[in-house]
Amino acid sequence: MLLLDIGNTNVKIYDGAEVRRAGVVGFGFPDTPFYYINVNPSVQEVLDRLPQATDLRGWFDFKTAYSGLGVDRIAACYSVQNGIVVDAGSAITVDRMREGVHEGGFIMPGLSSAKDSFAKISSKLVYDPENVVDLKHLPQNTADALTYATIKPIVLMIEEIARDLPLILTGGDAGVLMHYFANAEHREDLVFEGMQKVIEEKAIKEKRNAC
Amino acid sequence: MLLLDIGNTNVKIYDGAEVRRAGVVGFGFPDTPFYYINVNPSVQEVLDRLPQATDLRGWFDFKTAYSGLGVDRIAACYSVQNGIVVDAGSAITVDRMREGVHEGGFIMPGLSSAKDSFAKISSKLVYDPENVVDLKHLPQNTADALTYATIKPIVLMIEEIARDLPLILTGGDAGVLMHYFANAEHREDLVFEGMQKVIEEKAIKEKRNAC
Repeated sequence: MLLLDIGNTNVKIYDGAEVRRAGVVGFGFPDTPFYYINVNPSVQEVLDRLPQATDLRGWFDFKTAYSGLGVDRIAACYSVQNGIVVDAGSAITVDRMREGVHEGGFIMPGLSSAKDSFAKISSKLVYDPENVVDLKHLPQNTADALTYATIKPIVLMIEEIARDLPLILTGGDAGVLMHYFANAEHREDLVFEGMQKVIEEKAIKEKRNAC
Repeated sequence: MLLLDIGNTNVKIYDGAEVRRAGVVGFGFPDTPFYYINVNPSVQEVLDRLPQATDLRGWFDFKTAYSGLGVDRIAACYSVQNGIVVDAGSAITVDRMREGVHEGGFIMPGLSSAKDSFAKISSKLVYDPENVVDLKHLPQNTADALTYATIKPIVLMIEEIARDLPLILTGGDAGVLMHYFANAEHREDLVFEGMQKVIEEKAIKEKRNAC
């Protein structure tokens, strides 16, 4: 079973064993049957014309009051009964799941956006994503101030909505954020877990209907 | 007395009565004597060649352990004995002053940076700076989620370092942030207040030395 998670920048491909990542621009879709979720309007038309491509968008039975929730966020939350789901990519999305119900969430610019924002404001503001700082103390130089100002708002925002719920991090920058949360769980393939779950549910339903 | 506060995007000019604002690009510096602070490397060379221009950079007697603090932040803090100084422009700087000593601070991308960051991530993420949201509740649609995610981190970051100190807001986006702080003071001309203070101190010192 081939699964594709198509984002604004990258496509992630899961073949049942391994995940590989490729840029969206110039990406060649597989000729063999695949299931996908897609949040990138620029490739939807191409996907619609591929007979081997199955869009999972309408398959999720997802309880939320949030209007316009991206299918990538739905998929990431779909296998989580209780928890805060943080998907840290070009955007950072944060969603709260309680008893299988989506209670709301928000979107922040990702870590690479911060780097671009600072560079655009002044050539003196060079953000180093490798720099790890102690968030408990006020920074005393520009390099630490930029890291502090990039990471701490994200940490505060997550803590604010986390309350008693477990924290689950996924996405390309999850590793960076793991430095700042003592009890978080890093689940790289959370979106694929959600996609697999919805495909299995559909198979069970169809089997039941066939009986 | 003519004062110029030269930033990365704009120049603010104070003539003793009114403040006007102009873009840095193509700005014609006054022919009459003026005092200035400047954080924009691209115009420093021009300024150095103007005999009527006096750089206040070296004039401030400012106690801080922070290395590389911008002269605009020093000027904004200079007239504040105790307080959190927030200058919300193309960058948002936050500094803590206690008993006339600078205890540290940080820099965040400004509100307009958030707009650009979201637009760059996806055409679906349109941030409206006029939108005011209730930060106490999780947003339930994309428009509110973007405002929430832009404003709330800034508010949390400021509250985190504010503690018992009064909050003073300045800069072009101070008005937007005032919606979210019950007890903040909006002082538009804080940087000019600091510049005036340092000029007066120098005059007093010179008078004293002449006696």
